Amino acid sequence: MAKIDTARFLKDLNDLRQIGKFKTGVHRPTYTPQDMESRRWLMARLEECGLEASIDGIGNVFGRHKGPGPHILAGSHIESQNEAGWLDGALGVVAGVALARAGLPVDVCAFADEEGHFEGGFLGSKSIIGELSEAEMDRSRSRNDGRPLRTWLAEAGLAGLPRITLDPARYKGFFEMHIEQGTQLENADLRAGVVTGIVAIWQWRITIEGMQDHAGGTTMAERKDAGLAAVRLLAMLDQEFPKVCGERSTWTCGRIAVEPGAPSIIPGRADILFQFRDIDVAVLERMERCLRACVQESNRRERTVATLTNISKSLPAPCDPAMMAALDAAAESLAPGKWQRMPSGAGHDAQYIARRMPVAMLFTPSIKGISHHWAEDTKEEDLALCVSILGNAAERFLKG
Amino acid sequence: MAKIDTARFLKDLNDLRQIGKFKTGVHRPTYTPQDMESRRWLMARLEECGLEASIDGIGNVFGRHKGPGPHILAGSHIESQNEAGWLDGALGVVAGVALARAGLPVDVCAFADEEGHFEGGFLGSKSIIGELSEAEMDRSRSRNDGRPLRTWLAEAGLAGLPRITLDPARYKGFFEMHIEQGTQLENADLRAGVVTGIVAIWQWRITIEGMQDHAGGTTMAERKDAGLAAVRLLAMLDQEFPKVCGERSTWTCGRIAVEPGAPSIIPGRADILFQFRDIDVAVLERMERCLRACVQESNRRERTVATLTNISKSLPAPCDPAMMAALDAAAESLAPGKWQRMPSGAGHDAQYIARRMPVAMLFTPSIKGISHHWAEDTKEEDLALCVSILGNAAERFLKG
Repeated sequence: MAKIDTARFLKDLNDLRQIGKFKTGVHRPTYTPQDMESRRWLMARLEECGLEASIDGIGNVFGRHKGPGPHILAGSHIESQNEAGWLDGALGVVAGVALARAGLPVDVCAFADEEGHFEGGFLGSKSIIGELSEAEMDRSRSRNDGRPLRTWLAEAGLAGLPRITLDPARYKGFFEMHIEQGTQLENADLRAGVVTGIVAIWQWRITIEGMQDHAGGTTMAERKDAGLAAVRLLAMLDQEFPKVCGERSTWTCGRIAVEPGAPSIIPGRADILFQFRDIDVAVLERMERCLRACVQESNRRERTVATLTNISKSLPAPCDPAMMAALDAAAESLAPGKWQRMPSGAGHDAQYIARRMPVAMLFTPSIKGISHHWAEDTKEEDLALCVSILGNAAERFLKG
Repeated sequence: MAKIDTARFLKDLNDLRQIGKFKTGVHRPTYTPQDMESRRWLMARLEECGLEASIDGIGNVFGRHKGPGPHILAGSHIESQNEAGWLDGALGVVAGVALARAGLPVDVCAFADEEGHFEGGFLGSKSIIGELSEAEMDRSRSRNDGRPLRTWLAEAGLAGLPRITLDPARYKGFFEMHIEQGTQLENADLRAGVVTGIVAIWQWRITIEGMQDHAGGTTMAERKDAGLAAVRLLAMLDQEFPKVCGERSTWTCGRIAVEPGAPSIIPGRADILFQFRDIDVAVLERMERCLRACVQESNRRERTVATLTNISKSLPAPCDPAMMAALDAAAESLAPGKWQRMPSGAGHDAQYIARRMPVAMLFTPSIKGISHHWAEDTKEEDLALCVSILGNAAERFLKG
């Protein structure tokens, strides 16, 4: 088997951590000078490993293996959230470099803006599968400063460069290593997670219109309390969703806002953000039916008017069975009994690449589950173990 | 019986409406030039009616009847909320003038800052019953511009004037007429409300501490969702309060705020403002026990920590039975079947005056219940009817 140089892998990760260093994490928003420096650093590493490195018109950094196939693709993203962790996507990119260093027939890619600093998000992975139009690029603006994507690309020296498109025929599949961003592995005392798929996220807004009134002068029977209607609806969802969810479904109300929000005023309006996630479209559709029925029931019971609007529906991206089997076997050989299969609740570049080729993901534990914060971390021995599992799995899969 | 000149009463109200006119309402915040102009206007009206008019060191305008007693006191407040209605408290002050004009043995008072433009609120009625200390006046600041009360008083020419204190022995009781600020009269097609008392307001803050987490990476069983715990607690209160409340109790959650309030983040903290109102302390105490039990139950059931803090507890001010009986009889004689008894859910100067003498209040209907907004209004025929009821009741009570 190819030998992964885990010490060099850790050194690469720590070198990259110096670029845009923020406390123990990094601050490398997409297309900032720090981000561009990290992309140039990556191109140098790819060349070092004998790959042909390039950067394209959306900022994707690509390292092309010069030898014969069959090939695999490996990578993730290299920019970070604001003042965020040193691993996150950088881990998957540097893991790709480690596989290339070990001589595996791997192309490595760092997809631009997985973190969604720009409207649309996932610009790099959408672009490389041919699903980012020039018109979308014209429209997109920075969520940090509101300036157009085109302006940022020009300032980063990327304007006018051609955009790379993947040739699916070149690859057996795409491997992405990433931190878990949760506590499931840590709580179960496990060291690796073989991802079964990336859940779809279906996001909704519920607005409830009532009547703003004085809390003293309005009897209980007269009220059209939008805040109370929101509470009753959310309590109903809390009762009903467990009856229709899947084993690993999640559902979250991240925002409840009532207006005007003063102590002596009956809320006239409530604004709710609600989302649910699962890997199975049948389960998602069951949850949607339940949500619609609960909103309808709210409108039957209450004197307020609830309106449900879909914000977005992403597609689930199931992982490839043969690739998962290779990861299972590699994990069991290197960390027997210390791994599990699990879905990814968060979105990743792999969900877009899955539209063109088989994909699989490997999760490392996240200490205390901290993610998108500079304190994010993973034990070095777990990082080393997981890159070895990834290399071992890639080889098994290539031979399989 | 004394004859109330309702045409003159309506003219006085409309004259006063010109001072600080804002659209169809008025803008007369306490101690502003417009407010001081309205106080001088009032003093001239009081002198016109043969009363001895004065203004004191907190801005209370007082008209003292020069003849023998027994006396009654009548009035309310003359300043307005910002860009608010023309009636509100001005109605009760001008009604007092109308009673004086009719020759009734009435002292008339416009209490300063019922509207709470300054910290503390109810400055005038607190001062006149001897419950506003110089130290409290030193501390109080404008809620509009943050400048000290003392500065405002000096600019209004009131600094150093003596403060009037009521002699309870002089009065049989205090009558305050006011707009309802709700829709109970309008919805029941009634033209007058005999107030049974001013409710106490007990205000609470509930904070819930959970754990902020990624909505994708955290399983349902791992979550410490402060927003969900808030929903469950508020739903429990919605279930339990009807079992312990009184017939006219109200309870309101005016604010629910979850942090950070983003679609994909499990809320780590929730902040709730909750209040209940009743005229009966036994009912208020029952509601407090229920609230405490529900918070305790939340802490037994949930993985979050709910903390209950009392913000304030005011005292209820029941109206005087003999004064209410006089209002009942007057209302039934002038508007048979077109009036009802009802509590006041909002606070009024009468709640402080009640600490020194019997009080009663009469409500006029509020069109659409609009209050604290320039669109506030009441039909002129209802205004005229209610001032006649007030005069009739005052006379009955004085003779009783």
